[in-house]
Amino acid sequence: MAMTKKPVTGMKDMLPAEMQVRDYVIGLIKETYKGFGFTPMETPCVEHIENLCSKQGGDNEKLIFKILKRGEKLNLETAQSEQDLVDSGLRYDLTVPLARYYANNSSQLPTPFKALQVGSVWRAERPQKGRFRQFVQCDIDILGDPTNLAEIELILATTTLLGKLGFQQFKVRINDRAVLKAMADYCGFPEDAYDKVFIILDKMDKIGMEGVEKELLESGFAADCVEKYLGLFQAIEGEADPIDALNRQMAGGLDSQTAEGLKTIMDSAKAAAAAEFDIVFDPTLVRGMSYYTGTIFEVEMPEFGSSVAGGGRYDKMIGRFTGNETCACGFSIGFERIITILLEKGFTVPFQAEKKAFLVEKGMPADRLCQVLKEAKEERAGGTQVLVVTMNKNKKFQKEQLAKEGYQEFKEFFKK
Amino acid sequence: MAMTKKPVTGMKDMLPAEMQVRDYVIGLIKETYKGFGFTPMETPCVEHIENLCSKQGGDNEKLIFKILKRGEKLNLETAQSEQDLVDSGLRYDLTVPLARYYANNSSQLPTPFKALQVGSVWRAERPQKGRFRQFVQCDIDILGDPTNLAEIELILATTTLLGKLGFQQFKVRINDRAVLKAMADYCGFPEDAYDKVFIILDKMDKIGMEGVEKELLESGFAADCVEKYLGLFQAIEGEADPIDALNRQMAGGLDSQTAEGLKTIMDSAKAAAAAEFDIVFDPTLVRGMSYYTGTIFEVEMPEFGSSVAGGGRYDKMIGRFTGNETCACGFSIGFERIITILLEKGFTVPFQAEKKAFLVEKGMPADRLCQVLKEAKEERAGGTQVLVVTMNKNKKFQKEQLAKEGYQEFKEFFKK
Repeated sequence: MAMTKKPVTGMKDMLPAEMQVRDYVIGLIKETYKGFGFTPMETPCVEHIENLCSKQGGDNEKLIFKILKRGEKLNLETAQSEQDLVDSGLRYDLTVPLARYYANNSSQLPTPFKALQVGSVWRAERPQKGRFRQFVQCDIDILGDPTNLAEIELILATTTLLGKLGFQQFKVRINDRAVLKAMADYCGFPEDAYDKVFIILDKMDKIGMEGVEKELLESGFAADCVEKYLGLFQAIEGEADPIDALNRQMAGGLDSQTAEGLKTIMDSAKAAAAAEFDIVFDPTLVRGMSYYTGTIFEVEMPEFGSSVAGGGRYDKMIGRFTGNETCACGFSIGFERIITILLEKGFTVPFQAEKKAFLVEKGMPADRLCQVLKEAKEERAGGTQVLVVTMNKNKKFQKEQLAKEGYQEFKEFFKK
Repeated sequence: MAMTKKPVTGMKDMLPAEMQVRDYVIGLIKETYKGFGFTPMETPCVEHIENLCSKQGGDNEKLIFKILKRGEKLNLETAQSEQDLVDSGLRYDLTVPLARYYANNSSQLPTPFKALQVGSVWRAERPQKGRFRQFVQCDIDILGDPTNLAEIELILATTTLLGKLGFQQFKVRINDRAVLKAMADYCGFPEDAYDKVFIILDKMDKIGMEGVEKELLESGFAADCVEKYLGLFQAIEGEADPIDALNRQMAGGLDSQTAEGLKTIMDSAKAAAAAEFDIVFDPTLVRGMSYYTGTIFEVEMPEFGSSVAGGGRYDKMIGRFTGNETCACGFSIGFERIITILLEKGFTVPFQAEKKAFLVEKGMPADRLCQVLKEAKEERAGGTQVLVVTMNKNKKFQKEQLAKEGYQEFKEFFKK
C-alpha cells in the first residue's frame, strides 16, 4: 500500500534548521509587539464560506481552499454547483477573520483593541519558487482608534521589530487614499473610474511613468487628464516637502487634515524610531485591497525587491459584520519573506542553550542507566539541552553528525 | 450584506486571557522538550487524502474535513462520489503526517530523530461542551531508536513538563501490546479476535470487571476463556510486583524481554524523575489506535477524569511510507485538556512583564507627542510593556478597564 511521501502541491515540510529560525522570529515578534501593548489572539483556520466570499478579499477569493460539507448536508445528487457542496474554507488572510472575531467578541475586548495575530493562511496560487500555498502571516491591528496614534504605533512597532532582526536602512512608504482620490479628482478622471486609474498607477514600480501613461491612454482616459495627472507626480519629485508641493500644484486641493495627518505620522515615526529607516510620502503607493479607506503604507528593503510589510486604515470593514462602524488600522509583515531573507543572509539564532550529548553504551544495566539519567536531569535543570542517545558502533561518525546539529560537548557512558 | 459573526460550528475564537495561558504553555513545552534534545518541526495542515485515509487513523478517518479539488481537476458533472471531488484534507493528528515527513526527509534528519510538534488538528466530531473541531496537539516522537531509552526519555520529558506546570501526584499507566496478546493467547482466545477482546477490555474503567465479563460473553467468547482471562487480572491486583505475579500466573507465558523492558522503563522513570508522580503497570490499558506495536502508556490526573497524555511504540507505520521499517515511539499531550484544567484552577502566567499605560490627551501637538513616544521607547527597551493610548473623557472608567487588562501603572500626558 503505497502512500505519498511529498507534501501536497505547493506546501512545505519544515526542517529543523528552518524551524529554529521561524520559532525564534515568532518569539521576537510576540515579545516586541506585546511591548507596544498588542494582545495575542487567534481565530480558527476554517472560516464560513460566505464570510470568505464577501468581496473583502479581492483576488484572494479566487484562491480559497474550500471544505466539503459533511454528513447529511452533503448531497451530491442534487448539487448544482460548487456552492452546494461547501460550507467553509481555509482563511486566505487574517483580516477578514479579525473583523468577524471583533464583531463576535467586542463586548469582551478593550477599546481600542490592539490585536496581534501570528497564523497560517492558505491560498491556492499557481506553485512557484519561494511562494507557498500555506504560509504564515503576522498582523497587528488597532480597532477603535480614529486618531493618527494608531498609524504611528503600528509603524513604530513594525520598524522596531525589523530593527531587532538586524535590518537597517529600509524604507517606509506612506500615502493616503484621500490623496489618491484628490489627485484623480483634480485631474478630471470620472469618479467611477478611480479604481481603474489606481490599478494602473500601482504598476509604476514595474512599468515606469511612460508605461503608466500608455496604459491610461489605452484604457480610454482623456489625454489631458492623463497629462495633468502625470505632471503632478513629476512636479513633486525631489521636493523636500512633497506633500506641500503637491498641495501647491493642486491649488490647495489636498484637505488639510489628510496633509497634516501624514506629516504628523512621518515626523513622529522618525523622531521616536528605535531602528534606522526612512519614511517617505509616496503618492504612487496604491496597495491592492479595496477595503482601505485612509492611510496606506509599505516597507521596502534593498535586499528584497518587493515589499516585506504593508498595511493601512480600513474603517468600513468591521461595520459590515457589526452594523456599527468601527475604525481600524493594521500592519502585516510578510513573515515568509523575512524568513527567506534571514536564511539567505545565513542568520543564526542568538543566545542558544548549551547542547551536550550523552552517549550511552548499548545494553547498559538499569541502575547504571539511572545514574546517567539523573546526571542529565541536573544538567537540564540548569538550562543545558542534553541528548541522551545510544552509542553507535561508529562513534566518530556519530559525534560528527551530532556536531552538525549543534552539540558542542560529548560525554560517554559505558556499561561498567 | 450580513455576515456570520460566530466562528464555524465547533471551533473557537481565542480571547486574550486564554491566549496568554496558551502561549505560555506552548513556550514551556518547547523549552522543556528542547532540553531533552527534541527538535521542533512542522508539516502542512493540509495532507493528501490518500494518506489520511490509509487506515492508520482508525475512527478519525470518518471525521476528516475534506478539501475540494480546484480548477480543471474539479468536474462536478462526472463526479460519482465524494472521492472524485476531493484531493486533500485537514490532518486529524500529527502522527500520520510525521510518518510522511520522515519518509520524505529522512536523508536530512539525524538518527535517532527526536521530533517535537505543536500544531492544530481538525476532527468533525459532534459538537459538545469542551470538545472542539480544531484543537492543538503536542507530540514528541523518537524515530529510529529500538531501545527502551526511547520510552524512558519520552516519559521523563512529559512528566517533567507536567511538573513544571504545577501538576503533582499524577499517574503514568504502562502496558505492552505483547502483554495484551500473551494474556489473550494464554486464555485461549482465537488470534483473529484479539482486537475485539481488547476493545471490550478497554472499557474496564467505565463498566468494571463485571461489565467486561458480560460483554465478552455476549460477544460469543467461550465462558472458560473469559473466566480464565478475568482471573488473571484479579490474581495480580494489589501485588507488589504485578509483572512477576502475572508471569507466574501464566506459568512463564510472558516473554522475558517484554517483562524486563517494562521494569527497566518504570524503574528508570521513577529514579530520574523531575516531578512527583507514580508509574504503574496496568494490564487493562489498551489504547485505541491499531498502529501500536509494543509499549503503550497514558497519564492520568485526579483533577481530570480521562487521560491527559498518551502514547506508545509504533514500529510498523513509517515502513508503510518508506518500505523500510523504522521503529518509532511517541507521547502526545492533550494540550486542550491541560489548558482547560489550568484555566479552571485559575492559573496565572508567572514572570509577566511590567505593564504601563500612557494616557495621551486628544489633539496633542506632534512635537509633544514625540516626547511621549520617546519616553515609551525607553521604557520598552527596558522590557516594560507600554500602551500609548488616547485619553478618554471618562478617565476613571478607562483606568479601571486597563487595570483589568493588567496595567498597574498609569501616566497622563496633557497637551501642554
